[in-house]
Amino acid sequence: MDSKKIKVDNILIIHGPNLNLLGVREPEVYGGATLQDINRNLSELVENTEFKLDFFQSNAESALIERIQLTMNDGTSFIIINPAAYTHTSIAMRDAIAAVKLPFIEVHLSNIYSRESFRQHSYFSDLAIGVISGLGAKGYELALKYAMTY
Amino acid sequence: MDSKKIKVDNILIIHGPNLNLLGVREPEVYGGATLQDINRNLSELVENTEFKLDFFQSNAESALIERIQLTMNDGTSFIIINPAAYTHTSIAMRDAIAAVKLPFIEVHLSNIYSRESFRQHSYFSDLAIGVISGLGAKGYELALKYAMTY
Amino acid sequence: MDSKKIKVDNILIIHGPNLNLLGVREPEVYGGATLQDINRNLSELVENTEFKLDFFQSNAESALIERIQLTMNDGTSFIIINPAAYTHTSIAMRDAIAAVKLPFIEVHLSNIYSRESFRQHSYFSDLAIGVISGLGAKGYELALKYAMTY
Amino acid sequence: MDSKKIKVDNILIIHGPNLNLLGVREPEVYGGATLQDINRNLSELVENTEFKLDFFQSNAESALIERIQLTMNDGTSFIIINPAAYTHTSIAMRDAIAAVKLPFIEVHLSNIYSRESFRQHSYFSDLAIGVISGLGAKGYELALKYAMTY
Amino acid sequence: MDSKKIKVDNILIIHGPNLNLLGVREPEVYGGATLQDINRNLSELVENTEFKLDFFQSNAESALIERIQLTMNDGTSFIIINPAAYTHTSIAMRDAIAAVKLPFIEVHLSNIYSRESFRQHSYFSDLAIGVISGLGAKGYELALKYAMTY
Amino acid sequence: MDSKKIKVDNILIIHGPNLNLLGVREPEVYGGATLQDINRNLSELVENTEFKLDFFQSNAESALIERIQLTMNDGTSFIIINPAAYTHTSIAMRDAIAAVKLPFIEVHLSNIYSRESFRQHSYFSDLAIGVISGLGAKGYELALKYAMTY
Amino acid sequence: MDSKKIKVDNILIIHGPNLNLLGVREPEVYGGATLQDINRNLSELVENTEFKLDFFQSNAESALIERIQLTMNDGTSFIIINPAAYTHTSIAMRDAIAAVKLPFIEVHLSNIYSRESFRQHSYFSDLAIGVISGLGAKGYELALKYAMTY
Amino acid sequence: MDSKKIKVDNILIIHGPNLNLLGVREPEVYGGATLQDINRNLSELVENTEFKLDFFQSNAESALIERIQLTMNDGTSFIIINPAAYTHTSIAMRDAIAAVKLPFIEVHLSNIYSRESFRQHSYFSDLAIGVISGLGAKGYELALKYAMTY
Amino acid sequence: MDSKKIKVDNILIIHGPNLNLLGVREPEVYGGATLQDINRNLSELVENTEFKLDFFQSNAESALIERIQLTMNDGTSFIIINPAAYTHTSIAMRDAIAAVKLPFIEVHLSNIYSRESFRQHSYFSDLAIGVISGLGAKGYELALKYAMTY
Amino acid sequence: MDSKKIKVDNILIIHGPNLNLLGVREPEVYGGATLQDINRNLSELVENTEFKLDFFQSNAESALIERIQLTMNDGTSFIIINPAAYTHTSIAMRDAIAAVKLPFIEVHLSNIYSRESFRQHSYFSDLAIGVISGLGAKGYELALKYAMTY
Amino acid sequence: MDSKKIKVDNILIIHGPNLNLLGVREPEVYGGATLQDINRNLSELVENTEFKLDFFQSNAESALIERIQLTMNDGTSFIIINPAAYTHTSIAMRDAIAAVKLPFIEVHLSNIYSRESFRQHSYFSDLAIGVISGLGAKGYELALKYAMTY
Amino acid sequence: MDSKKIKVDNILIIHGPNLNLLGVREPEVYGGATLQDINRNLSELVENTEFKLDFFQSNAESALIERIQLTMNDGTSFIIINPAAYTHTSIAMRDAIAAVKLPFIEVHLSNIYSRESFRQHSYFSDLAIGVISGLGAKGYELALKYAMTY
Repeated sequence: MDSKKIKVDNILIIHGPNLNLLGVREPEVYGGATLQDINRNLSELVENTEFKLDFFQSNAESALIERIQLTMNDGTSFIIINPAAYTHTSIAMRDAIAAVKLPFIEVHLSNIYSRESFRQHSYFSDLAIGVISGLGAKGYELALKYAMTY
Repeated sequence: MDSKKIKVDNILIIHGPNLNLLGVREPEVYGGATLQDINRNLSELVENTEFKLDFFQSNAESALIERIQLTMNDGTSFIIINPAAYTHTSIAMRDAIAAVKLPFIEVHLSNIYSRESFRQHSYFSDLAIGVISGLGAKGYELALKYAMTY
Repeated sequence: MDSKKIKVDNILIIHGPNLNLLGVREPEVYGGATLQDINRNLSELVENTEFKLDFFQSNAESALIERIQLTMNDGTSFIIINPAAYTHTSIAMRDAIAAVKLPFIEVHLSNIYSRESFRQHSYFSDLAIGVISGLGAKGYELALKYAMTY
Repeated sequence: MDSKKIKVDNILIIHGPNLNLLGVREPEVYGGATLQDINRNLSELVENTEFKLDFFQSNAESALIERIQLTMNDGTSFIIINPAAYTHTSIAMRDAIAAVKLPFIEVHLSNIYSRESFRQHSYFSDLAIGVISGLGAKGYELALKYAMTY
Repeated sequence: MDSKKIKVDNILIIHGPNLNLLGVREPEVYGGATLQDINRNLSELVENTEFKLDFFQSNAESALIERIQLTMNDGTSFIIINPAAYTHTSIAMRDAIAAVKLPFIEVHLSNIYSRESFRQHSYFSDLAIGVISGLGAKGYELALKYAMTY
Repeated sequence: MDSKKIKVDNILIIHGPNLNLLGVREPEVYGGATLQDINRNLSELVENTEFKLDFFQSNAESALIERIQLTMNDGTSFIIINPAAYTHTSIAMRDAIAAVKLPFIEVHLSNIYSRESFRQHSYFSDLAIGVISGLGAKGYELALKYAMTY
Repeated sequence: MDSKKIKVDNILIIHGPNLNLLGVREPEVYGGATLQDINRNLSELVENTEFKLDFFQSNAESALIERIQLTMNDGTSFIIINPAAYTHTSIAMRDAIAAVKLPFIEVHLSNIYSRESFRQHSYFSDLAIGVISGLGAKGYELALKYAMTY
Repeated sequence: MDSKKIKVDNILIIHGPNLNLLGVREPEVYGGATLQDINRNLSELVENTEFKLDFFQSNAESALIERIQLTMNDGTSFIIINPAAYTHTSIAMRDAIAAVKLPFIEVHLSNIYSRESFRQHSYFSDLAIGVISGLGAKGYELALKYAMTY
Repeated sequence: MDSKKIKVDNILIIHGPNLNLLGVREPEVYGGATLQDINRNLSELVENTEFKLDFFQSNAESALIERIQLTMNDGTSFIIINPAAYTHTSIAMRDAIAAVKLPFIEVHLSNIYSRESFRQHSYFSDLAIGVISGLGAKGYELALKYAMTY
Repeated sequence: MDSKKIKVDNILIIHGPNLNLLGVREPEVYGGATLQDINRNLSELVENTEFKLDFFQSNAESALIERIQLTMNDGTSFIIINPAAYTHTSIAMRDAIAAVKLPFIEVHLSNIYSRESFRQHSYFSDLAIGVISGLGAKGYELALKYAMTY
Repeated sequence: MDSKKIKVDNILIIHGPNLNLLGVREPEVYGGATLQDINRNLSELVENTEFKLDFFQSNAESALIERIQLTMNDGTSFIIINPAAYTHTSIAMRDAIAAVKLPFIEVHLSNIYSRESFRQHSYFSDLAIGVISGLGAKGYELALKYAMTY
Repeated sequence: MDSKKIKVDNILIIHGPNLNLLGVREPEVYGGATLQDINRNLSELVENTEFKLDFFQSNAESALIERIQLTMNDGTSFIIINPAAYTHTSIAMRDAIAAVKLPFIEVHLSNIYSRESFRQHSYFSDLAIGVISGLGAKGYELALKYAMTY
């Protein structure tokens, strides 16, 4: 992402399954902000910049795969993804994100390293630029800040 | 579930993937009753009681997740779930059922402990009140009887 | 078990080690009912039916083995067994129950799937008709109801 | 498949997730042919024969499950399936293909044995007649030739 | 065992749990001979020799341990033992037989190597002179012949 | 244990299987003192104190379980236990000692960490206050000294 | 293999140990065709083409190694190999085929994925262009068709 | 960290072994910035804020332990730590950071999830608030921004 | 083997690699008898019986495979085999002996269960009638006695 | 240590990393006594005896190694060591203590068997005379009492 | 090897499978020298010394075994062996070299520790005096120099 | 290392922890030569050559790391390193030696392959040119000879 270019940089924010429950589901684990709160905060961060955000949440693996595939044609230049439970089970989403060959950061709200052992492995991390885990909704913001200077 | 309350107690019965084939698919493993037969039997059990049943079957992980999410607002007080193949693979469904924080029983028609090794692990059992496995369609009935006295 | 037969159907209820402490030992895990309470409840369930129950508890692996062996000659037609700690360690009890070739259900009071990892494996489950785990004393009742319609 | 019968033999070709990207996605791994190219080639192979092909691609596990279930009633006599990423994760698709009890061949475009270790296990291979892996789009043709003489 | 000595050589034959069922329990696995048949055959083999046999069967681990301990004082010079299920679980019996420091042969009626994986490990074999497995009741005879020329 | 109380403090010393052979069995591993020697030494340590010792040895898992269960009613306030071989195999004894909820120290005569790998795991250690291993008969004395100041 | 070249293309067909028994050994697993039948069929396939086949079967690992080594000088351009049991044990054959750097397809008559677990690993597959498994003698034909258009 | 307090908030930045080589050592993996560059950038971020940074780099495990221990008395309220190679081997550093009970973020310059398998496990992550991995020197900045709003 | 038949019963004795060194190689492990001694003793055992022995020793896996294959046509009715080191490595010999479908006993001179861990697994045992291990040259005699009454 | 000798017996007490924090660090795990308290108590125990104590604490693996090496020349006859975190990671300290060939006891304040799984393995235990774990500061005293009668 | 003896010291150099391809096979891995080059260089090293070299290469496991067995009678006093692929698979060669009880050094041309994981285990190393790996043809020379001063 | 260059070639010899005890510590394992003896021998080997040796021994991981780091500026062109116990535990030293990008040989005095299993893995070997293990002090000489012709 050359900082001198004029055309808009599209950044896609993908939220995986059950993240539609944010603010309701186990707030002691995931925090009290809703997904709308998080998205609004992120939108404010890009106001008056060359960046444009697109948000996508789905509980369906296939919808997530197809949204990722769309980036081949919609001008997306960076992806911030919280694959939630699919982090640990979806090779199909991994294949999609590998196919589109875009840089991406993997974000987790909770610290997956202090949870069940099956949350210790990610099918995304080795392909990602990097991972931000455990910093709550703030993790998305930090990822976005990174993306904006990528 | 306070036995003195007057309002109806909603119990949700969830059937996972391929259970729409019941009675057709490998009857020597799963028995000859169809899903309609099973549901009808269960409905008869709650006739003239304070309990109301809702049934849901889907082959789609996301539909199952979203049906579970709905219980946060639809008055469901207990879930009886046979996650079928998703028992062993769906962390996303586990996350949904953990989020709604309802008591639930996991039911399996066949004895999963005498089948392939990959069927020995469940992403649901440690969160469930209990598990009934191997007792065929009868397993749902027993789970329902338990739920009615919970 | 042909429902038309006249002769009594003997069902054997076996309780494994430390179950004599029920109601005393860790009630938060195993519930407050004593073994006598449980047995009495089960007896009431078969009153005025063609079924007769026999109860057996022992802390000794060999006594349990020998009680199981007796079923070869005492007219038992079904076994409901809670092998307790021997679930995870006694191949000898497994061999005994395999030898007598009777249908049986394995019952656990607590949800063994949410406890220590060494309680995740059973030497009985793959031979059982089915398993009921985590439903407390109620689990025996459900098993008995199943047995009575087997 | 009795070679003397007159009625048409339906062969179903199933393509799993991300295969809609063929020709675009990592051509150095999967080759340059599109899914349309592959399907057209296969159709040419059955021209003027007693065989009829049906093609199905989906990124959704449930759609794939339901297409497989349909073969119970649509006269399909053989399935050629490339489950792609679901090869390694979908017990639900395995259950569906086991339920319909049709002979099938598992095809992989790339040589899965020279890729990530998580691609070394298939939930389909032990149920398949056979597996063809690593021969690119040609693999489908060989599978079809086999099916036509089955 | 010096072949020139005059005093009687005592050989102890130990049968582990469930072997009292021999001839009844799964004859297709363990053969049709009863334990009495086997013992009688073995007794005939030592008739008119300097050897005397003592037989012991128990389903109780502790009884087996204590019978082994007795050999420290009862003149036993060789043990032939079929620990049955305790082969795979009893470190206590292992400790007893290690303590008495007598040569012994481990015998199994069935071929444990073609059975469940948990029967592949023995707590006795590494301490034994040798192992005879799978040759049915004949295995005891061969072990006895070996002992008589030890 | 409040040092100001007047009533006698009962400490139970439990010796597991094969410890009746002490002084005879492999003295190079377990030392030359007999169990009577050890118990006598321990008794001398509590002479003229507020402590009373009770000793129990058995080769039977069930007898050991039942002796532990008795402590619920016999005023025992501390247990010193050498479960010997059952250390590594008896979940039933673990359950008994967990049920009585008394503080206990696990003692091993030999250094189990320099022996066979199957002696590296204990079903008792995680529940114990602590473990003393490898210090021979002296280990019991040290445990007793600890118990007397607990 | 440039399809326009005039000089003969030599394809080597290698059959590993025990394949000389084909048609005799376990026909229910490997089919009823003899090795001669298979080779004859393959020869017919290349009649009147630019391809020439060479066949080699041996039960000796070293003979197979040396036949593979010969391809460095005998004009072979493609290898079709069924390493049979050596698939799972021969690193030396792997080293030979890696050394000669020829493209090859690995063929298995039976579906190795539905057999013993030790047949699930191949020392050849990651080096091969691809693998055809479970399609019986037909598998060689398909491999040959592939080779002829390579 | 109460945002209303006036006293300075000390944040400690710890760099583990070999990080003194930054900018020199494998810049393709770790980036071209030196440790001085990184520290200077971070210092600029807190200019004119209530935060004060302290930096510490050492190749010695004990020096790192002791610097962490010092935070018990030096007013540090937050730690940002890149334990480098000690991430995977130092339980002693883990114990130190657990002892001081300060919130901390674990930072890695490179994406440890795409490197050697021994870099996949951290002795720090389960104790950390969160982890930032793979974002180069930028990772420290993001961690600092998080700390400043903690 | 029908005991009433008149024609000679051929028993094949196979000795694996390095057994030609018997009597020389590590006599403390394998005993002092040479292979000739062993064979002579076995021959004496069948003198004046309906049994005829054939002996075969080779250090070559392929020679052993081919000798086993020959039994399909040479009237052999029973095999006694000591596969020596190939016990643990030769799937090809396993395939050969499975192909000829003859009953066989696996013999080991030394007690393989008290040796290196890689000697604990056999590719033959699960197919054998039984295994005799650790009884030295005597083990062959016992196997022969068994074969003569099979 | 011959109790009749007159010359002073030097006993070295080694405390590993983070033990300088004792009394401060997690007192609920490690107790409230400081290292000075512990050392003072131990010193009182040897007052007026032939024993002399030397204390050493370090957070540095190398300092601990070198203190152990010194015992080759400083007259130490016994070591009591609490390697703390280095218990689980320092082969170098193991090598040092193996080199000086002095008898030693390994002490742990907390019960390492009820903590994280990585604390279940010690690089010292198999070389030690014995291990005392979980008895708090009292554990050192018991070890010292043992040493004084060694 | 007594340096004062006059009689010739025979050193055997054994080259395993595929080493006949040296200089041709993957020179980037194994170097450009042929086996003849290597042997000639080694011969020059012993010119005018008391040492005599014998060289042996084979692709056949049995030929290698038999050459090793010959050393029992041919005056060989030291072996330098590069078992190549058989390093990782041949227990039979291990048994042969253990039987002849000669000192030997294991040599590998390539650094096996930086190659496939299946090359990390050797059946020879624990019996060898030592191992030289990764130093190319030079490794043989260094081994020979060692042998000449053994 | 171009053999024609005139400037001195610096070779660094690094000895890890406890090697200062050489000649004293377990001479039956490590030989009787002291570190001084070894270094003196090596120095004699480079007398009158273009090579200069530098020696470094430390028990401190950090000192070893920092000595390795120094080679970036001190003209070292080759490293011979015996990391001793740190071979198996120090990723930090691995990172240092990877950072300086110098060719190095890993030397072990004892044959680590015939010792404890935790000595079978090295964090250095896959980065080294090669490994020499088990040849005692002679191993350093051979490594030096290799380095001088590198």
